[in-house]
Amino acid sequence: MISSKRRYVAFAPGAFAGRAAKTAHGVIAYASDETVAVVDPAHAGKRVRDVLPYLDSDAPIVGSVREALAFGPTALLIGIAPPGGALPDNYRAEIATALRAGLEIVNGLHVFLNDDAELRALAEAHDAQIWDLRLPPAAPLFSGAAYDVGARVVLTVGSDCAVGKMTAALELTRAARAAGADAAFVPTGQTGIAIAGWGTAIDRVVIDFAAGAAEQLVLEGDRRARELLFVEGQGGINHPAYAPVTLALLFGCAPDALVLVHVATRTAIEGYDSPILGYRELIRSYEAACATVKPAPVVAIALNTHGLAEAAARAAIAEAKEQTGLPCDDVVRFGPEALYAAFAPALRKTAVRRA
Amino acid sequence: MISSKRRYVAFAPGAFAGRAAKTAHGVIAYASDETVAVVDPAHAGKRVRDVLPYLDSDAPIVGSVREALAFGPTALLIGIAPPGGALPDNYRAEIATALRAGLEIVNGLHVFLNDDAELRALAEAHDAQIWDLRLPPAAPLFSGAAYDVGARVVLTVGSDCAVGKMTAALELTRAARAAGADAAFVPTGQTGIAIAGWGTAIDRVVIDFAAGAAEQLVLEGDRRARELLFVEGQGGINHPAYAPVTLALLFGCAPDALVLVHVATRTAIEGYDSPILGYRELIRSYEAACATVKPAPVVAIALNTHGLAEAAARAAIAEAKEQTGLPCDDVVRFGPEALYAAFAPALRKTAVRRA
Repeated sequence: MISSKRRYVAFAPGAFAGRAAKTAHGVIAYASDETVAVVDPAHAGKRVRDVLPYLDSDAPIVGSVREALAFGPTALLIGIAPPGGALPDNYRAEIATALRAGLEIVNGLHVFLNDDAELRALAEAHDAQIWDLRLPPAAPLFSGAAYDVGARVVLTVGSDCAVGKMTAALELTRAARAAGADAAFVPTGQTGIAIAGWGTAIDRVVIDFAAGAAEQLVLEGDRRARELLFVEGQGGINHPAYAPVTLALLFGCAPDALVLVHVATRTAIEGYDSPILGYRELIRSYEAACATVKPAPVVAIALNTHGLAEAAARAAIAEAKEQTGLPCDDVVRFGPEALYAAFAPALRKTAVRRA
Repeated sequence: MISSKRRYVAFAPGAFAGRAAKTAHGVIAYASDETVAVVDPAHAGKRVRDVLPYLDSDAPIVGSVREALAFGPTALLIGIAPPGGALPDNYRAEIATALRAGLEIVNGLHVFLNDDAELRALAEAHDAQIWDLRLPPAAPLFSGAAYDVGARVVLTVGSDCAVGKMTAALELTRAARAAGADAAFVPTGQTGIAIAGWGTAIDRVVIDFAAGAAEQLVLEGDRRARELLFVEGQGGINHPAYAPVTLALLFGCAPDALVLVHVATRTAIEGYDSPILGYRELIRSYEAACATVKPAPVVAIALNTHGLAEAAARAAIAEAKEQTGLPCDDVVRFGPEALYAAFAPALRKTAVRRA
């Protein structure tokens, strides 16, 4: 880890406005590192705020890495997530330009740039670093040490992928700190890692060691914060492809409590025929899955009401509360403070008593 | 795949009598390949039957690979599973001897011998092959194609690791074939792969692709048998470390039915504090986990009564039947025919109707 903050160029050519650029969006919204420019020829000349108002950033959008160098960056963030994760050919020359300027490359692609002989050689020649966000460290088997951490562990779990589990964990961490708690966000995917500067992309770990890798993250989180850890969840308990990742976090992180995250408008698992379960069935599924390993109750619902008008959003939140008897809110739209206050201080007190 | 059958030397120095040699035991018991000799200085001069009567094999046990060459082997099976899976130093010279004699090396260790420069060079110099059983193929993401296979898929699921899931799948495949069904065993671990000559060690797959790798195995099984596939299960639904592997098979193989496997004498998950669940809770857990993805009922119980006297074994089987209302038997001790007849012909008929 470099201790000084990065000054990022976020690289998302032709893609900055869309969901494929979610790593760039996440870093702009949540990282303590500053994004000083964005590369996307489709929006060159605008500022980030013009394209994505919710990001509330003045950073300029330019057409190339060469132009972005004028803003004094220290790092290039490969801020997109193309299907399959491979390195598009047209990126290579731009990454080379950044390396020749001595910029660190922070890479969220599936493909590891440290394995690319040409880019590796360029990095060495120009004394530049390449950080492959998804490269998992060697992890031991799960040991059970996660059962003994001093901090209380809260895992966000979802009705599907891409519903806002990372965002909910980040927002709740922010609310916890604002309330005076010693709290940390625990990153488990490439965007969370880019935001927080540490973590492991659990989806890239060999399955036998995935629970062990999750456990290591909680042990590291416990060294970073004494009271509350908010772990970014992955996948979904009935996701046909990614449920094993979900279970590795549910068992490996040994959470004390779960926060259920759902997109109000989604009705089927993206890319598959499987239905999104109802709130009560989701809660039952998650609580049953961990009941005989380390029981953890669902204590709150973070509802993503993106795409709903405000009245419909409030109605959806009321409906979730009614069905489950749990506190519910949209932590982005209405802020995380109310939801945090509804469940977390009690956990925090328990943790302090135990310590 | 070499089409002629292998003539194996099973290499298990100092370990042949114990559970660490389970790959060697499995190949001797179930492979169509012949084991012509075993290397274990601790039992040199005896025959396999003298050390492990249940294996019912006359193969000689010798003190070194050099001595074993007299029996005309074509392959050396690294037939042990040391903790961590690394290559013990004293094995290297023996493996080199086998390579110099042109033997194929069939390696179940975690470490891949094709990555070992010295052994790789020896293999090339002597025109010998190295088959790393655990090396997973590149797998695609889960696609849902497993939902459409013509054969009926039966997955063995367990109360823990090492309870007999592979053995139950092998024995039921044997019973199915004896009853005239076009059936295949689907291997998911290194011993099963060594026995059947194909398969994928699911525990070595990157977790995002584990369900996809399981799906590919079922698609390949469907090309090998039209009626019934018996898939070797892994781990356990409440195993703190390995449950993700269990779930990858449960979702990725899209089974039509589950056979629950349990060791009658075991009361806790090996190596962890977690309890072994009761039959009804296990059945509920497995059925609930897949209920909203592709539902599959538990249709039978394969009870491993190893270590119990016969009367106690029969009482344990009766108790499982009583508690669950399901057919139950020890398929090794009493043969697989009765258990097969109790549930599988109905599945087979359904499959034929659907085809």
